[in-house]
Amino acid sequence: MRLGVCYYPEHWPESLWEDDARRMKALGIEQVRIAEFAWSRMEPTPGEYDWGWLDRAIDVLGAAGLKVVMCTPTATPPKWLIDRHPDILPVGADGRARAFGSRRHYDFSSPAYFEASQRICTAVAERYGKHPAVAYWQTDNEFGCHHTVVSYSPAAVARFREWLKARYRTIQALNEAWGTVFWSMEYRSFDEIDAPVATVTEAHPSHRLDYRRFASDEVARYNRMQVEIIRAHSPGRPVAHNFMQLFTEFDHYKVAADLDVASWDSYPLGALEEQWFAPDIKARWLRSGHPDFASFNHDVYRGMSKLPFWVMEQQPGPVNWAQWNPAPLPGMVRLWSWEAFAHGAGCVSYFRWRQAPFAQEQMHAGLNTPDNRLDVGGNEAGQVADEIRNVLAANADANATVRSKAALVYDYEAKWLFEIHPQGADFHYPRFAFEYYSALRSLGLDVDIVPAGASFDGYSLVVVPPLPVVPDDFAGRLEKSGAQVVFGPRAGSKTRDVHIPANLPPGALTAVLPLRVWRVESMRPNVTEAVILEGRGKDGEKDGENVGDGFARHWRDFIDSDASSALDVRARFADGHPAYVRSGACHYFAGLFDDALTQRLFARIAQEAGIETIPLGDSVRVSRRGALTYVFNYGAEAHTLDEVAGNAFVIGSCTVPPQGVAIYRS
Amino acid sequence: MRLGVCYYPEHWPESLWEDDARRMKALGIEQVRIAEFAWSRMEPTPGEYDWGWLDRAIDVLGAAGLKVVMCTPTATPPKWLIDRHPDILPVGADGRARAFGSRRHYDFSSPAYFEASQRICTAVAERYGKHPAVAYWQTDNEFGCHHTVVSYSPAAVARFREWLKARYRTIQALNEAWGTVFWSMEYRSFDEIDAPVATVTEAHPSHRLDYRRFASDEVARYNRMQVEIIRAHSPGRPVAHNFMQLFTEFDHYKVAADLDVASWDSYPLGALEEQWFAPDIKARWLRSGHPDFASFNHDVYRGMSKLPFWVMEQQPGPVNWAQWNPAPLPGMVRLWSWEAFAHGAGCVSYFRWRQAPFAQEQMHAGLNTPDNRLDVGGNEAGQVADEIRNVLAANADANATVRSKAALVYDYEAKWLFEIHPQGADFHYPRFAFEYYSALRSLGLDVDIVPAGASFDGYSLVVVPPLPVVPDDFAGRLEKSGAQVVFGPRAGSKTRDVHIPANLPPGALTAVLPLRVWRVESMRPNVTEAVILEGRGKDGEKDGENVGDGFARHWRDFIDSDASSALDVRARFADGHPAYVRSGACHYFAGLFDDALTQRLFARIAQEAGIETIPLGDSVRVSRRGALTYVFNYGAEAHTLDEVAGNAFVIGSCTVPPQGVAIYRS
Amino acid sequence: MRLGVCYYPEHWPESLWEDDARRMKALGIEQVRIAEFAWSRMEPTPGEYDWGWLDRAIDVLGAAGLKVVMCTPTATPPKWLIDRHPDILPVGADGRARAFGSRRHYDFSSPAYFEASQRICTAVAERYGKHPAVAYWQTDNEFGCHHTVVSYSPAAVARFREWLKARYRTIQALNEAWGTVFWSMEYRSFDEIDAPVATVTEAHPSHRLDYRRFASDEVARYNRMQVEIIRAHSPGRPVAHNFMQLFTEFDHYKVAADLDVASWDSYPLGALEEQWFAPDIKARWLRSGHPDFASFNHDVYRGMSKLPFWVMEQQPGPVNWAQWNPAPLPGMVRLWSWEAFAHGAGCVSYFRWRQAPFAQEQMHAGLNTPDNRLDVGGNEAGQVADEIRNVLAANADANATVRSKAALVYDYEAKWLFEIHPQGADFHYPRFAFEYYSALRSLGLDVDIVPAGASFDGYSLVVVPPLPVVPDDFAGRLEKSGAQVVFGPRAGSKTRDVHIPANLPPGALTAVLPLRVWRVESMRPNVTEAVILEGRGKDGEKDGENVGDGFARHWRDFIDSDASSALDVRARFADGHPAYVRSGACHYFAGLFDDALTQRLFARIAQEAGIETIPLGDSVRVSRRGALTYVFNYGAEAHTLDEVAGNAFVIGSCTVPPQGVAIYRS
Repeated sequence: MRLGVCYYPEHWPESLWEDDARRMKALGIEQVRIAEFAWSRMEPTPGEYDWGWLDRAIDVLGAAGLKVVMCTPTATPPKWLIDRHPDILPVGADGRARAFGSRRHYDFSSPAYFEASQRICTAVAERYGKHPAVAYWQTDNEFGCHHTVVSYSPAAVARFREWLKARYRTIQALNEAWGTVFWSMEYRSFDEIDAPVATVTEAHPSHRLDYRRFASDEVARYNRMQVEIIRAHSPGRPVAHNFMQLFTEFDHYKVAADLDVASWDSYPLGALEEQWFAPDIKARWLRSGHPDFASFNHDVYRGMSKLPFWVMEQQPGPVNWAQWNPAPLPGMVRLWSWEAFAHGAGCVSYFRWRQAPFAQEQMHAGLNTPDNRLDVGGNEAGQVADEIRNVLAANADANATVRSKAALVYDYEAKWLFEIHPQGADFHYPRFAFEYYSALRSLGLDVDIVPAGASFDGYSLVVVPPLPVVPDDFAGRLEKSGAQVVFGPRAGSKTRDVHIPANLPPGALTAVLPLRVWRVESMRPNVTEAVILEGRGKDGEKDGENVGDGFARHWRDFIDSDASSALDVRARFADGHPAYVRSGACHYFAGLFDDALTQRLFARIAQEAGIETIPLGDSVRVSRRGALTYVFNYGAEAHTLDEVAGNAFVIGSCTVPPQGVAIYRS
Repeated sequence: MRLGVCYYPEHWPESLWEDDARRMKALGIEQVRIAEFAWSRMEPTPGEYDWGWLDRAIDVLGAAGLKVVMCTPTATPPKWLIDRHPDILPVGADGRARAFGSRRHYDFSSPAYFEASQRICTAVAERYGKHPAVAYWQTDNEFGCHHTVVSYSPAAVARFREWLKARYRTIQALNEAWGTVFWSMEYRSFDEIDAPVATVTEAHPSHRLDYRRFASDEVARYNRMQVEIIRAHSPGRPVAHNFMQLFTEFDHYKVAADLDVASWDSYPLGALEEQWFAPDIKARWLRSGHPDFASFNHDVYRGMSKLPFWVMEQQPGPVNWAQWNPAPLPGMVRLWSWEAFAHGAGCVSYFRWRQAPFAQEQMHAGLNTPDNRLDVGGNEAGQVADEIRNVLAANADANATVRSKAALVYDYEAKWLFEIHPQGADFHYPRFAFEYYSALRSLGLDVDIVPAGASFDGYSLVVVPPLPVVPDDFAGRLEKSGAQVVFGPRAGSKTRDVHIPANLPPGALTAVLPLRVWRVESMRPNVTEAVILEGRGKDGEKDGENVGDGFARHWRDFIDSDASSALDVRARFADGHPAYVRSGACHYFAGLFDDALTQRLFARIAQEAGIETIPLGDSVRVSRRGALTYVFNYGAEAHTLDEVAGNAFVIGSCTVPPQGVAIYRS
Repeated sequence: MRLGVCYYPEHWPESLWEDDARRMKALGIEQVRIAEFAWSRMEPTPGEYDWGWLDRAIDVLGAAGLKVVMCTPTATPPKWLIDRHPDILPVGADGRARAFGSRRHYDFSSPAYFEASQRICTAVAERYGKHPAVAYWQTDNEFGCHHTVVSYSPAAVARFREWLKARYRTIQALNEAWGTVFWSMEYRSFDEIDAPVATVTEAHPSHRLDYRRFASDEVARYNRMQVEIIRAHSPGRPVAHNFMQLFTEFDHYKVAADLDVASWDSYPLGALEEQWFAPDIKARWLRSGHPDFASFNHDVYRGMSKLPFWVMEQQPGPVNWAQWNPAPLPGMVRLWSWEAFAHGAGCVSYFRWRQAPFAQEQMHAGLNTPDNRLDVGGNEAGQVADEIRNVLAANADANATVRSKAALVYDYEAKWLFEIHPQGADFHYPRFAFEYYSALRSLGLDVDIVPAGASFDGYSLVVVPPLPVVPDDFAGRLEKSGAQVVFGPRAGSKTRDVHIPANLPPGALTAVLPLRVWRVESMRPNVTEAVILEGRGKDGEKDGENVGDGFARHWRDFIDSDASSALDVRARFADGHPAYVRSGACHYFAGLFDDALTQRLFARIAQEAGIETIPLGDSVRVSRRGALTYVFNYGAEAHTLDEVAGNAFVIGSCTVPPQGVAIYRS
């Protein structure tokens, strides 16, 4: 547990640097990220490097006892490079190259940019790879930000054809795999294949998914190139990338596989405003963020990080980039920081040290205001630093690894597939995965978020949000774990090539779920379908609890099963069709249920899995790391922990005020 | 009355074909449409045809006793053709060519495509024109689908100039006809004229309407070319095209004039979702479709078909292409099928035999599921086949021609004109025509839908939804018929060249409607204007009925008349201006009225026309064909026909259950 | 006070002209605007002018005793000119040139168009500059209409670079001024700078604002060229331009500085429909327009016109160009006309004499219907003409200059800046300026609208809607005036180069407002923040009035001040932060308040400024010009003026009916 900050010495007079470094240290900051947008200062003229200022900046930071997270500057190629190689610019779905003048204006498939990136990364890594103050690295900045993964450039199409050749070997195999006979879309050679864009009506879904897979692989390839250069010149320094909340145009697992640290940039208020939440939800959590949003991301990146994950950028006050930008309530910057540590973070690094008074982000708060006074967020960061010292002093295991009994499967390809082939216009995969996660969290459970290819050993409960394409051995790994497994609808509904399975959904999962989804419905926003829980299970036991009604929205399946199968119908739709069935340890939801029903069913299944649940409501959240339990109050009312002994508290007390944090030993 | 199905042998292993054919026949299917998307299989390499598989497929179908509807494959030109002639691709309003990769990626004005189409059509017609199993033909597939009629390509502009020359002869005549002096838009030669697109503000309405007329004529020209080739090589086989619900970018009457069979593709649920209906209406008819939507289309295509019209594609279950895709209620596939026959259909052909497990339409249900089990729709199709046999056996006149006393004028140019020059942003012609139709149907009337150029002899009631441009002899033909005629607002409001008539609207109709529309208002969605019916007509009769208030929405006229004219004001707006006036047999609505008021007025006028009406409410519909009366129940409650003797029923009984059908002899 | 009309002789048979002129004169029209769209008739073939028709038209008008407002025809370059110089066409943000076929299809930066404009303007000015009937000129038509100020053409970029060179001299100065070090956006020469468009995410705000300033300057340069040509050939004739309501893409003050008459085109109903007003407001004022909208514009253009401003085009009936187009209530054309005179207009000129039956505007009403009968608006114009004669006869000072005690600062650059860098998606500057104006008007105040660079001497109250960039001597001029000054939020929040001021907002205004805005919030539409007025001011006086609560919406500031400062907190937000503070004569609103609260605060401050206020509600408005007081009733109920003696009325009486006008001497 430690704090960091993002800093841009190139934005400020050199005369400020020493004072900045001293004040950072005094506040309790330990690491400083620099230089990710400084290419035009590193290489102001093609081939002529200017390292002097950066040498001095790093020296100043190091002299103050701060560790530097050094960045490659590739997120912002300078104008002269673009003018020399205009084909670096990515091309949008509208066929137009995007222009210089902001950031991320490069195509991952551009050979010229790959070469230029190799050159600047090598130069930076050579210069600073062994500098004593440089302790970590970051590659580029926020891959995928501003929808920059998928490009429709000639360079991308050329590389896509190569990618297809490698995948399918022959054009006959591709035609067969995709099913191009439909609408006479058959190809005679790989060179006939274009990007799936600008077609009269929707392009072929297999073509589209492969293009998305390809674009994702290009990001991994590009990042790997940078990691290898850094490792060659800076051995022993962990390499990170700062992923961005829910920017899911590439497979974060694949990129993280090449890194030491998966970090992410946490902006709870901006995310609330920009994501799928309804207006009343946006108003309810306006100045705190949704209680499960940061947690969801912490758990995503914890799962893919070899070393403890970081928050590379933590929102310190109002931001500039959402449609509307409220200020966090007093206490929220502290709460968010502790929440990250509770979920296993190794570092929380605030963005940024001081609000810049110019350019695009001038309205983005920092720890300090532009006139260099400590802002609310800066004060709270200082408080966190003090508290960390106390917690670490008293709890040797404070940095323990988080252990969860529940796992949630999260899959990037599922996002792309539902985007490409949704069947219902509002089928938004991250939303539905988040809603399952939120239901688990409202029951007080710690949750690991894992890829579909993970081992599930050690988990008692595995929740699988809609997962159309399942890996070959998915059912086997789940069975082997012994966990209770909950499948959302669409599980196993597609093959890898985006076909309906020959035996209909759930396809390969039929081994553990002996049912057949013979029809589906997507439901428009003003339509729901009632769900009635069965009073009596197939095995004859009476359910003691009072199970009321709920409803499905967005989606429902029509399922049937062989008469011989051991399928236990636990809920039905109003028309009698099964809504929730169980087969042994496997549970299948034939619809997307309202939040209350989802929570009720998860509570029951968790009980069957032998996991204790605590109904927390929607504002209080609990996390456990080592012997410490963390309680966070996002609500407007104080929350009381009567069951905890007063002397157990490391931070806070039995009464957790609004925006408050309590930590106790158990 | 017979059933058909759409089938794609090229999508399935040849080993399935015989069993498919056998099961079709066993289910009661009599005709099978094939090959409309199979160009890449017919001609996998430029100029090298592969007919073997198609020969075998047709032989298998013929051997099973099925009749084949053979298609030209021009809706999906293969990639090699596009690569050789990129100018085949249509150009959008954004100036970009649309890309290969879905369907309908061709420009009707492309000389290269016209030539290629002639070649493939000739090849197909030569090969199969006299095959004994080939009983019918279909040209292309769904002209106008995906907004593919209007192209802004250089080829289109070149042909447009020729079209203009033929229409106007001299550029002076064009300048005068359009009124280009406005805003200095005068042309000095036809070669100066471009497509009316990408202008700073709206382009000239006369220019725009002529471009739409031209684009429509291009479709007719293209279709005619195909029909002529087919007729030359396949004499005696009726030629059809499958029109698409409300795809009104071209004049369906003009295309149908070259065909033997006008058929259409009926997707009641997808249409409900994608059309203008308000969210509550979409929820109300979610799984049945709107009770008047399929009927409206049946009556449209019945009117333009030389032989009995067909439903070439009938929705058999959930589809894939609407924003949300619900499943039909049990019974609806049967109901829709009988409804088509009630309206005079010769054939109802389901789309498709078996759900394809791959490509764009993999979520589109068929009569069979992808794992080849008969789906709900398949079972209902089988039931319909049995019922047809019974009906035909017992009723020699079951295939009689539908006779209606009421006609509704429906005009494609009106759609284009209101789109180009609406004056109120939500002036949607098909909606308003549909609402008049729906009002007539809710009164139990059978309705013929006819073009403005039709003879109205034999009708007692003619309803004219907003019709800005009237043919020269329109008033004369209406008068000659002796029918009561109801005009919606905007009747006669424009000349053929899109001018306001010199005597103001209703222009040429002033002969029968001695009034003058001197001002109009379009009304924003949250504004209505009260309408008060007059208690006493001009002729001194007291209206016996209790006529309450209604309101206008979307549109109102301000009208006046010569003091000498025999204009009877039957309703007024709250400000005293006339809202509904009568002159002899002609009735003029000076606004678009709410549904209830429209129904009330139509009921009264029908009575004056000597037509009996039955108030049916919104869920039950009645149709008559020959001596048979058909009753359809779209609602959730059973409907009782107390007045019909029990032994009169051919299908069903006095109680028509939800989604039920009853047929009785009268 | 006089009436005019817009007339297009080229649209009508020459045989109508004499009768038209006679009827205009008889109706009371005194001036006639002509020829602004007639280029294709003036020069039908390149270089070959045809003046004959225009000579005759002007002669006919002059012979009838009418004065001509002659126009340059540059708003509509003919097709042959575009075909010869396609680079005349402006280029949109989508990178596409806009096409010929409507109007305003030219790029202000096109050298070819500048040259062609010089040529045609010279030709027109030479021919008619000294014609006895030509009394005034109009340059072009409605600069900025259809968003035609900003172009992204190569020509515009080339001139932008020159503009930047002139402004910054060195590229180093530009890099520093903009802050291009952010995101490596540094430039090495002016030639590297492109238009700020098509970037991956938002372009640099300083870059964007400079591009807008440049585009605005191009309009002024273009207009100045025309004015100079006219003045050279037509000495002594005032030159006008017709500005368009709220078309704020260029600085109207800068263009007006070169003119004699600032005129504007008043379409109260179309403006209501197309502007920001909520649906219920649009329904409430559907057929009258918003009571403050035309007034706001009158006051804008009065302030920038050397001679009395004009309404060059006055809506006479329904228009064609809004989404929905209602008809004015009877009396509104008269009311609008008198309202313009009340606000100081020299002329009200109706658009147009007769509704054209063809082309884009065929649904736009005129004083006469297309069949040449006087329309409602025409009758009301005649009534106004009669009334003017009576008023002028009895009141020698009827044409007096309007004198106001209150001023409102209105700034075009502020509009651009909030558009570029809003921080809250609905921060719409004209709306907020209008709401302040409306609050003042509802208190019965006459208001001058002035630029930020104006002298404020003579005003008792100055209201400053959100003004991010203040001129250097702004605070000084305000102090010198002795007026009470109300600042909305964001005052002084940016430097000229779009930086946050070094001392934070209000930056340079800190001299008169000793506070520091250390944090801001933008608020989404469903969020408000309560405001509680202080019961007791800092000076110890008890507020006698019952000050209830109100709320902020859209925006709030967090402010603090030095303990030593004389800051009087007059209202607080619910969390205790100041919402409204006073320092001497300066008042600062730390949020955008609801209408009622804004009115209440303005009333109090006006009282403190020694200005009497009258609470008028939302439908009645009062204006004063010379010794005459004008009362206008926009509402549905009669308004009574009990305090005015019956014999004081020049027009009307103590009871002002709905849509009525009263004028009395005081």
